[in-house]
Formats: sequence, C-alpha cells, structure tokens
Amino acid sequence: MQLHFTAETSSDGVVDRSFTVGDVPGVLWSPESPAPGAPLLLMGHGGGLHKRAAGLVARARDAVVRDGFHVAAIDAPGHGDRPRSDQDQRWVDAMLQARADGESLAPSIEPYNTSLAERSVPEWRATIDALQSLPEIAEDAPVGYSGMTLASAIGIPLAVAEPRIRAAIFGGVFVYDAVLQAARNLTIPVEFLLPWDDAEISRESGLAVFDAFASEEKTLIAFPGSHFRVPAEQFDTRFFARKLGAGLVSATG
Amino acid sequence: MQLHFTAETSSDGVVDRSFTVGDVPGVLWSPESPAPGAPLLLMGHGGGLHKRAAGLVARARDAVVRDGFHVAAIDAPGHGDRPRSDQDQRWVDAMLQARADGESLAPSIEPYNTSLAERSVPEWRATIDALQSLPEIAEDAPVGYSGMTLASAIGIPLAVAEPRIRAAIFGGVFVYDAVLQAARNLTIPVEFLLPWDDAEISRESGLAVFDAFASEEKTLIAFPGSHFRVPAEQFDTRFFARKLGAGLVSATG
Repeated sequence: MQLHFTAETSSDGVVDRSFTVGDVPGVLWSPESPAPGAPLLLMGHGGGLHKRAAGLVARARDAVVRDGFHVAAIDAPGHGDRPRSDQDQRWVDAMLQARADGESLAPSIEPYNTSLAERSVPEWRATIDALQSLPEIAEDAPVGYSGMTLASAIGIPLAVAEPRIRAAIFGGVFVYDAVLQAARNLTIPVEFLLPWDDAEISRESGLAVFDAFASEEKTLIAFPGSHFRVPAEQFDTRFFARKLGAGLVSATG
Repeated sequence: MQLHFTAETSSDGVVDRSFTVGDVPGVLWSPESPAPGAPLLLMGHGGGLHKRAAGLVARARDAVVRDGFHVAAIDAPGHGDRPRSDQDQRWVDAMLQARADGESLAPSIEPYNTSLAERSVPEWRATIDALQSLPEIAEDAPVGYSGMTLASAIGIPLAVAEPRIRAAIFGGVFVYDAVLQAARNLTIPVEFLLPWDDAEISRESGLAVFDAFASEEKTLIAFPGSHFRVPAEQFDTRFFARKLGAGLVSATG
C-alpha cells in the first residue's frame, strides 16, 4: 500500500507530515535535512489515546532533534481519527465499568487488546513498508519501536513478527497469556518500564514479562506510581541511539 | 581531621590527587578549573576492590569531564592500601571458602559487611568534612554517592546518616536485616541496580530492598547477569547531573 501525505508543517527543525496508508492515518516527524540511512522510530500510543497524544509528540520531536531519527505514529483501530466498531465499544464500556466498580479489567481488556494487536500488527508492517519506500527513508533503515500499555500489547507481537525492528521499549502492559508467549519469542534489545504501584496491573505480572523476554540485552526500569503517568525522565533517551545508531544531526544545522 | 595531599597528576582535563584523611587513603578527581559550588560525588568500591579499581576510575573521570563534578573515593578497611585485620581476613577466607563450596555466603558476609559499614560510615563522613574544607570545594556543595555490592552495604547506612548526601546509586548488594532496616530510612532520590540472574544474591532480596526504600523518587534498573560484571551502560550517567546540578564545565575550556 502506498503512503499519501495529507498535510505538512515545519517548526523548530522538525518537519511534521500527516499521512495515510490505506485507511490508517499516521504522522511522520523528520529532520529538515535527514541523514541518509537515518533510523526510523515507531511510537505507539497508549490505550484510549492517539497518534498526536501530547507526551508522544514531545518524545517524537525530541528524537528527531536529538538523534536525527525519523519518527512515525499511527492510530490504532478505534482510536484517534479511526471509527470504533460496536464490538470494540462494548469492550471499552466493559473495561471502564470494571474500573469504576473496582473489578478486574481482565475479562474485557484481554480480548480487546488481543484483537487490537491482531489488527494492528499488519497495519504497522504495511506502514513500515510504505515509509521505507519514501525517497528520504532508506529501505534498510534500522527500525525501533517504543510504546507502553496498549502500545506494548501491540508492539511485543509486532517486534516478534517483524525482523526489521531491532530494539524496543515496552512497559506498563496488562499481562495475559498471549503477551507472555510473545515475550518468550522476543530476542532484540529491550527496555521494559514497570510502574511499581499499579492498582490494575500487578507487579508480579510485570516482572514475569521481563523475565520471559528471550533477549540477551534487556533492562527492567521500575519506579513508583501507576501506568497512568510515567515520569518523562524514566524514558531512556539514549537507548535507541545506542542500538540503532544516530542520524547525522549536523546535517540539520 | 585534615586532608593531606600526597601526589598529584593531571591528564585529559582531570586533576588526580591522592590524599589521606587520618589513616584513610583516598583519591580526588577534579576538573582543571572547577566551577564554584561544583557537586561532590563519592564513589565506593566493590568488595575486594579498591579506590583505583579500573571501572571506578573510568566512571570518576567521566563524571569530572562530563558533569564538572569533583569525585572522591577512599579505601574501605582492609582494602587497597589499608592493612586487613585478622578478624577481617577470617571473614574473607570463610566467604571465599563458602563460594568455592557452593554454600551460602550469609554466615560470613553478613557480619563482615556489617562491621565494614560500621567502620566506614564515620570514615566517609570525616572525608566529606575534610573535602568540603578545601578551598576549591564549597562547604555546601551538593553530595552524591555511587557504589554497588560492598559499597552499597556501606553507602545505604551512610546516606541515611549523612544529610549532605542528596542522591545515590546502589545495587547488587547482599541483603540482610541491617541493610533492609537502613533502606526503610532512606528518603533521597535513588537508583538501584539489580543483576537479574545472580547465583549468590537472590532476585527477591534485591526487589525487597528496592521496595523498602522510603524515597519518593526511586528507580529499579534490572539486567541479565550477576553482580560480578555490571554493563557500563547500565549506570545512568544523567542521574547525578539531574539531582545535584552540574558544575559549569565550560569553565574548564
């Protein structure tokens, strides 16, 4: 599928282009003068959020300016600019009701996240194909993936299925069997962020995911609080530059 | 007690001065032109090592050049240039024998580390006093402490006793009640490094120490391997600059 740009702005050294690949809308942030072979970093949004969530945009622009990366985000099904199916809405309603009632989210979040991951993995792969066919992104550009909560439920199986993804940051993910099974097949360098006091996601389940990763290079980063707010300083801004190499930022002035 | 410098060299922008405070030998690494009020970072060495262990020296010089810090290390009792008492030697022998026999280190390492901590805490405090009385180090210079294994067994009670220490990195420490009790009284920002597959220090005991820290700002960093070799990239080189402020490195040229 081809990528179509639908809007472009530029500020503070970052070119911001909205695009579609098929019916999936996305954003590509790039340096004004990207280096040949600059890495491509995929950023997934959290559950209920979208491709232009404030924290995601801030981290994306940082990665462009600091590392010379291209950064891309897409809306998950039923998120952002995408219509939500009746079935998805029922899962969301059940999850919010369970949260309000202080009951387990598992009966709704497991099938919902599983279904979203099944739909999103091929969308992300088609997006990588389309991005790497752009003249300014190399066909063999190293690819990284970063995203917590829903973006980890999608990203862990994506990184297992997609050999172009060479390093990833995950975390704060609701854990069920499919997540653990995918984790056991992950072999790339990974950092895993674990909120230490999460009322909805047990500490033990997070430790089990980290333990399950087959990666020789893996780092667990745990900190007080819940998955609703991860301190910005907990994101290791040096990780992707170490694992993917940096774009030559000098070319951007 | 007064600090006496016994040797001085300078290379690559770092001034390296050996010193003594009483009968405790140490090293102070400083920028060639330290900024007024530059922070002081204390680095403890691991068990069986000394104040000029290769990894410690590399991290110390990095912190001088990158952050403009003063960095100090001292030999623990019976380590480096300091004589080892007969009792200490018996504990060391018993520990090495237990390791060779694949038995628990606890019967030797608990009393040994406890005793070393009791002796080292006042030595470190006298060293801070002496360093802060130097003309090039401010009396109120912010102080950090970094050190794993034995240096955490010493550093955790030190950081509890010493209000001048404002941030610390610990990890890979053999855990016993006194360590947990000290951890419960620690309130400063802390990072805790946890080797995930340590044959001698259980994962659970490390998680228990992290959990025990009373600090509002605390980060657990876990990674494959044992406490015998911590990957250099696991040391968060941005932590102390965030927590202590950086010296003005521009002054060093």
